[in-house]
Amino acid sequence: PLVRIDVAAGRTPEQLARISRAIHEAILAEYRIPERDYFHIVTEHAPGQIVAQDAGLGFERSSGVVMVQIFTQGGRSQEAKGALFAAVARNLGDAGVAGEDVFIGYVENTAGDWSFGFGRAQYVTGELAVPAR
Amino acid sequence: PLVRIDVAAGRTPEQLARISRAIHEAILAEYRIPERDYFHIVTEHAPGQIVAQDAGLGFERSSGVVMVQIFTQGGRSQEAKGALFAAVARNLGDAGVAGEDVFIGYVENTAGDWSFGFGRAQYVTGELAVPAR
Amino acid sequence: PLVRIDVAAGRTPEQLARISRAIHEAILAEYRIPERDYFHIVTEHAPGQIVAQDAGLGFERSSGVVMVQIFTQGGRSQEAKGALFAAVARNLGDAGVAGEDVFIGYVENTAGDWSFGFGRAQYVTGELAVPAR
Repeated sequence: PLVRIDVAAGRTPEQLARISRAIHEAILAEYRIPERDYFHIVTEHAPGQIVAQDAGLGFERSSGVVMVQIFTQGGRSQEAKGALFAAVARNLGDAGVAGEDVFIGYVENTAGDWSFGFGRAQYVTGELAVPAR
Repeated sequence: PLVRIDVAAGRTPEQLARISRAIHEAILAEYRIPERDYFHIVTEHAPGQIVAQDAGLGFERSSGVVMVQIFTQGGRSQEAKGALFAAVARNLGDAGVAGEDVFIGYVENTAGDWSFGFGRAQYVTGELAVPAR
Repeated sequence: PLVRIDVAAGRTPEQLARISRAIHEAILAEYRIPERDYFHIVTEHAPGQIVAQDAGLGFERSSGVVMVQIFTQGGRSQEAKGALFAAVARNLGDAGVAGEDVFIGYVENTAGDWSFGFGRAQYVTGELAVPAR
């Protein structure tokens, strides 16, 4: 998976690393991918540049909202995705992020849509095994 | 929907907020989502870091180009998408962005691909109604 | 295609432009799109904000890793995608980026998911021809 993490500026590098790690641990635990299948892009934003309301659910977010966008190959069940979302929020809670502040969007592609280096599609060449679903 | 808005640095926070709001109003009007289904990530870039040519259409963009990327669940018709694109450009025009400077890309996922808080997939749990199409 | 390029801060504007151009030339050569179908968003990140391990392949990346995410319409074969990935890595190599440092993710949508200006979906209106596959 490739994970984009967008947050307001203000956390320390250590806090940001902990947030990233929390999300990665959730993916490792739920999707049983290799430990080193770890691809995150963190972007910090000035105040006001992240808007994240409650979609009508009836809660307030803080300025500490963590916007998580996960790009990964399709084929996993809704149950598996739901368990991943729960694990992400649980782990982020341990890292000091409130449940209200965890936003997740998920986008699917295919195994052939990834190249981890050298311009080779390693799931297609067989250099990497496609993670079990 | 999650909307990524990428622009060159230089606008005031008020101008950026107006651009975000213009796009949100277009989505509200065309897709009839809840007012608080508002999730935008604005990123400013140094000069030269956004390249946006004309795809051969024969016009010039300014440095004020607004790159809009909309992630939302699939199922809407091309007619609905086209009406959304038109409303985005119209509203951005009212916010001072020329039609030449409106670039839109659209990526679809499913209702189960969203968690608005607490690691729950609220369209699946039933906490949120899936927007009508 | 819309291409997001995420890198650690530290390269010169000229180096960044060369990286962008290298990727664009690969797409032009492999997908035979119009020269001016050129839409890139470069984002620089502070140290530690890009995590890119090796997915278990057994190599080390440098801090010069280039994260490439390509959004484009679907319909191209895996062979075509693989040739594109190879060309991206080859051209980036000419631009001074090691093969180890080229990460590519690919996300597909449809021709009707793009508006290049004025809120019109130019592949649907017929103002632009849909690129051959």
